[in-house]
Amino acid sequence: MATQGKVITCKAAVAYEANKPLVIEDVEVAPPQAGEVRIQILFTALCHTDAYTWSGKDPEGLFPCILGHEAAGIVESVGEGVTEVKPGDHVIPCYQAECRECKFCKSGKTNLCGKIRGATGVGVMMNDRKSRFSVRGTPIYHFMGTSTFSQYTVVHDVSVAKIDPQAPLEKVCLLGCGVPTGLGAVWNTAKVESGSNVAIFGLGTVGLAVAEGAKAAGASRIIGVDIDNRKFDRAKNFGVTEFVNPKDHEKPIQQVLVDMTDGGVDYSFECIGNVSIMRAALECCHKGWGTSVIVGVAASGQEISTRPFQLVTGRVWKGTAFGGFKSRTQVPQLVDKYMNKEIKIDEYITHNLTLDEINKAFDLLHGGDCLRCVLTL
Amino acid sequence: MATQGKVITCKAAVAYEANKPLVIEDVEVAPPQAGEVRIQILFTALCHTDAYTWSGKDPEGLFPCILGHEAAGIVESVGEGVTEVKPGDHVIPCYQAECRECKFCKSGKTNLCGKIRGATGVGVMMNDRKSRFSVRGTPIYHFMGTSTFSQYTVVHDVSVAKIDPQAPLEKVCLLGCGVPTGLGAVWNTAKVESGSNVAIFGLGTVGLAVAEGAKAAGASRIIGVDIDNRKFDRAKNFGVTEFVNPKDHEKPIQQVLVDMTDGGVDYSFECIGNVSIMRAALECCHKGWGTSVIVGVAASGQEISTRPFQLVTGRVWKGTAFGGFKSRTQVPQLVDKYMNKEIKIDEYITHNLTLDEINKAFDLLHGGDCLRCVLTL
Repeated sequence: MATQGKVITCKAAVAYEANKPLVIEDVEVAPPQAGEVRIQILFTALCHTDAYTWSGKDPEGLFPCILGHEAAGIVESVGEGVTEVKPGDHVIPCYQAECRECKFCKSGKTNLCGKIRGATGVGVMMNDRKSRFSVRGTPIYHFMGTSTFSQYTVVHDVSVAKIDPQAPLEKVCLLGCGVPTGLGAVWNTAKVESGSNVAIFGLGTVGLAVAEGAKAAGASRIIGVDIDNRKFDRAKNFGVTEFVNPKDHEKPIQQVLVDMTDGGVDYSFECIGNVSIMRAALECCHKGWGTSVIVGVAASGQEISTRPFQLVTGRVWKGTAFGGFKSRTQVPQLVDKYMNKEIKIDEYITHNLTLDEINKAFDLLHGGDCLRCVLTL
Repeated sequence: MATQGKVITCKAAVAYEANKPLVIEDVEVAPPQAGEVRIQILFTALCHTDAYTWSGKDPEGLFPCILGHEAAGIVESVGEGVTEVKPGDHVIPCYQAECRECKFCKSGKTNLCGKIRGATGVGVMMNDRKSRFSVRGTPIYHFMGTSTFSQYTVVHDVSVAKIDPQAPLEKVCLLGCGVPTGLGAVWNTAKVESGSNVAIFGLGTVGLAVAEGAKAAGASRIIGVDIDNRKFDRAKNFGVTEFVNPKDHEKPIQQVLVDMTDGGVDYSFECIGNVSIMRAALECCHKGWGTSVIVGVAASGQEISTRPFQLVTGRVWKGTAFGGFKSRTQVPQLVDKYMNKEIKIDEYITHNLTLDEINKAFDLLHGGDCLRCVLTL
């Protein structure tokens, strides 16, 4: 390839400061070093985690940076020792790596690979602990090991899922974060059984993916909880069978759900990131076996609480990250499921814009109408 | 039997008021009604839950009452419709019933039978919602559906475990609460696997039973945590391999344990009832899979808290009641295990007294030396 081994100058959206509009810049992207992969990003979606870091509320957020972690593209070049992908491969960058060698990967109990976290957590690449991005000589931090708001990005090889080249990248880019998070929360973390009652707090993309996963698992009642009544109609298409708006009730929402379900739900999912709702989600679970899964990401420093009696009487409190999916192994399988029409993706895409409209896309994300806005780069 | 169908007058320790010494009284014990069993209690131990209610801190505690819930005895008579036990059977009264008919029992997911809870929770029998105990015409409340600080007690048939008549009642009385709670927390609730690292907070009877259960499960490191260094020597006999006293460290105990275990333990057990320690027990667990089980009972109104990130990164927070054992079915199996020398009991009995020394026994319970004091009635 003509670009291999060379710096590529391309367009990227740079977040220079918290809460200031992103700036479309000519960014220089260095070639991949050993164990790294340079990817041409063709499509990226926006997720609330991008907005959270951009807002400045994430104490680990570093600026200037290139945000973005839900995307798809094509391998442009690979660094030394990279064997599992080659230029031209269609890929999804995965913010949750899978090295298959660390004690997390080997445990068989978790998808939280630890290999590169020490570097990605501070916005650099592991090889030299530096960034591959710069603008006019100033380094720009990486974000979540992905930085997909750029026409080209460099990621660690353990963060690259190689997918079916027939899959439409403008759709399957969503398999980089929100949709797998919801599906996996049901299938991998909660392991919902057929006939279960399920409550879902928050009917955004992740909550709807939870509904879809619960429907596929054979749940008999899927109760959607949201303060926006307009979300119910759309949620029905994803499997939600009943809708509850906490604003319509004087009683605490956990009590409303306990009353509706003769003692509580079998499984609940918090898909908002609100610690009060996390408590409600636990407490609406059935005594003896109800399991509540925290899917949403709370703001830094906030804490969950409950009476220990809730747990002593049999409720279980868990959480999930990327739905428990092992990224490199299972994202390609999710792509195949989409190609076989076993899971939805198209229905989550409510808006399509281009990279230079990214600030508008962030505005859309905060409105109630937008599930996912996919940007063409 | 000469006493069948008649009121029996016998000795019992009555708690008239919170925090006032129990009074040995001549108590009248009415005959069992339909679905009830009158038991001659021969031996009872004291447990911290008795002391908690006696202290007046339990908002659901009712006075006057007859406390006691860890005991063994012989069936004196049975009420109408009782088929599973008969006079002369050796039994352990179980504060956690097992009716095998309610949705809890049928679920296969919990031991928390709900059949009689509405009555036992308010100190009466289900049949007529009255007490079978009285002193000079004044009714005395039941406690936990067992009230074993009496030479005779009346319990619901679903609360009676029939055991091997060869088993020494002065020993197996301990299978009514603390020892099964600890063993079951490991075997049923946490499901500790061979090779695991385990931390146990609090080395009283329940904590030592957790150690014994963990050793039997093949745990490789069993770390005992207690603020009393004297407890370590005894704990070694139950399987504890290492001892940590939080007072010896400046760092929070969860950090001490994370450092000791290269990232945290696989399983932790809180056997104290202290909400701050419950948090430490969760946070000393390994990212990705560590499971913390709340075994201790916290004072009313107290709350546990943590950052949700602890759960999102793979830790699981659970609790256990009676170790998840189905009482009528599994207590007899535990008796058999004791008879086969597969589990310890004798080693938990540090003191033996008589019923009229019960106030001294409560004093002993609050000292560090006493594990279990067994009273002869």
